[in-house]
Amino acid sequence: MAELTSRWLTEKGPEQEIVLSSRIRLARNLSTLPFPQVADDKQLAEVARKVKEASEVKGSWGRLQFRALSEIDPLEQQLLLAKHLISPQLVQKSANRAVILSDREDISVMVNEEDHLRMQVLLPGLDLEEGWKLIDELDDRLEERLDFAFSQEHGYLTACPTNVGTGIRASVMVHLPALSMVNQVQQLFKGVTQVGLAVRGLYGEGTEASGHIYQLSNQVTLGRTEQEIIENINSVTKQIIQQEQQAREVLSSNAKAQIEDRVYRAYGILTQARLLSTQEAMNLLSDLRLGIGLGLLSEVSLTKLNQLTVLAQPQAVQGIMKQQLPAQQRDYYRAALLRENLKDK
Amino acid sequence: MAELTSRWLTEKGPEQEIVLSSRIRLARNLSTLPFPQVADDKQLAEVARKVKEASEVKGSWGRLQFRALSEIDPLEQQLLLAKHLISPQLVQKSANRAVILSDREDISVMVNEEDHLRMQVLLPGLDLEEGWKLIDELDDRLEERLDFAFSQEHGYLTACPTNVGTGIRASVMVHLPALSMVNQVQQLFKGVTQVGLAVRGLYGEGTEASGHIYQLSNQVTLGRTEQEIIENINSVTKQIIQQEQQAREVLSSNAKAQIEDRVYRAYGILTQARLLSTQEAMNLLSDLRLGIGLGLLSEVSLTKLNQLTVLAQPQAVQGIMKQQLPAQQRDYYRAALLRENLKDK
Repeated sequence: MAELTSRWLTEKGPEQEIVLSSRIRLARNLSTLPFPQVADDKQLAEVARKVKEASEVKGSWGRLQFRALSEIDPLEQQLLLAKHLISPQLVQKSANRAVILSDREDISVMVNEEDHLRMQVLLPGLDLEEGWKLIDELDDRLEERLDFAFSQEHGYLTACPTNVGTGIRASVMVHLPALSMVNQVQQLFKGVTQVGLAVRGLYGEGTEASGHIYQLSNQVTLGRTEQEIIENINSVTKQIIQQEQQAREVLSSNAKAQIEDRVYRAYGILTQARLLSTQEAMNLLSDLRLGIGLGLLSEVSLTKLNQLTVLAQPQAVQGIMKQQLPAQQRDYYRAALLRENLKDK
Repeated sequence: MAELTSRWLTEKGPEQEIVLSSRIRLARNLSTLPFPQVADDKQLAEVARKVKEASEVKGSWGRLQFRALSEIDPLEQQLLLAKHLISPQLVQKSANRAVILSDREDISVMVNEEDHLRMQVLLPGLDLEEGWKLIDELDDRLEERLDFAFSQEHGYLTACPTNVGTGIRASVMVHLPALSMVNQVQQLFKGVTQVGLAVRGLYGEGTEASGHIYQLSNQVTLGRTEQEIIENINSVTKQIIQQEQQAREVLSSNAKAQIEDRVYRAYGILTQARLLSTQEAMNLLSDLRLGIGLGLLSEVSLTKLNQLTVLAQPQAVQGIMKQQLPAQQRDYYRAALLRENLKDK
């Protein structure tokens, strides 16, 4: 599907049975201009102009494309949202805002969101080291052309104090159906927050976990190096993977027939239903992903599943159908899109 | 499937979208011997011997095969039950009992059940006239060889007074999903009983309607000719067909997407699930049959659906797997059998 060719939606990644994607974000601001929330239109335009110019830089990501938000159709904006390439905050206003995308959409840079620049690298599977290499290269290339606000004492300055320091936010999206089924997920996350990580739903802050997919990210950036932050998430994620795999083994041996039944029913419904809500679709896709992990389903690939998880979102349905749709029609087109896309691996 | 080649499971019949099958049964007893319930073993053996001899008669049904119940494996008996060829009462004891079957299983004669002979013709669709022709021919041929108990005043004598007279019981199995969904089925049946018909579930007296399938039959046989009885059921059934079709049109226009969704989900689950109870399977098959009626599904034929309705029964699962199975294993094999059989039309 032409709209869903982002790297995390088409390429394999490490530990991808349980980790959908890894994301690293850096917040940067130009030292000569005020933060977006207090800047006037002229200043914001100046930020956009400077960043656009700097975005012509080349690197291992290939080419970058600067796109003013005002020139992106609102329905395409919805699609970018569903693909995790921009934030809901960015699209609230369009004047002087922009997004910079690499060809494979593994890099996106939001311009004049909360900070002047929010750089993001998004990769399939658990691949924070690779993500760090890529965003570090981007950061260096841009810093050669832009003067970032930096203090010897605090590090990089950001609009929100929680980002001050390295300005880094690293996160992984993990799929934990077996831990959910045996009711161990809440207890697990209690431990996770104690080691300084935050747990959120699939679409960031304030969203509910859907289809047993959770986002783990670091809470603070001050006083730690980027490598420490990444290493922390990495090792916690690996422990969680192990626990999820143990829970899957328990389920498989205690309730094999029930799990198989659940997986294949999900496949049957997704390939045949004519109406699917986001919530139901996410739960069914969760069952499919579990089935692939257990070696039951070979009809669907994990990258295809990442695409379908995006496709299940209301924003994606509207973005691909290129129209605003009332809920029942969305359910109808969602079912059709999922069905169509499940036909080939 | 070799076990499911009965005529009503393989051939098309009139009105088969709504009427699964038509059945006519005649009760007859030999005048020289007491009714089964009061006969001793020697007398029952004598009945069986006489009937076996008479069953060599040929007719438009082809050949008849006499099979002593004691020589039929209990698991095959279960299968005959599920195919509506024998009654639960017949298999309770096996001594001196028997069943006579035609090659296409459109004719079956139970020997020494409640009466000495219970002849049955079972045809696909609404085809009581054809059924009457066939059973009348069988009755005539057997009467040439056997002396049936008959009184000028009462007609044919039977063990149960409700069968005295013509000894005829005619019934049709109708599928009424739309009337059920709009909650009109109870009211309809109130009217039906007022014109002398009885309503039962799929597997006869005392069974619940399953998968919206109901059995309509005449209540009494005394004081009416066979033609009157058949004509009455025929015309009531045609009215019911009309009402069901009207209800389907209403559903299709008021809730098209929901009905389509329901039909295709049923197809998806039946082709993929690994565990299916009889009740769920019957409900899903009901949705499939509705889908065929509405022109939505072309993947399944109506005769195939009759087969699957039999296959959904615990007796059939055990009969085909040739073993007694605990409930969860039955659910497993039921799902496998339905899935396998849905692969080809």
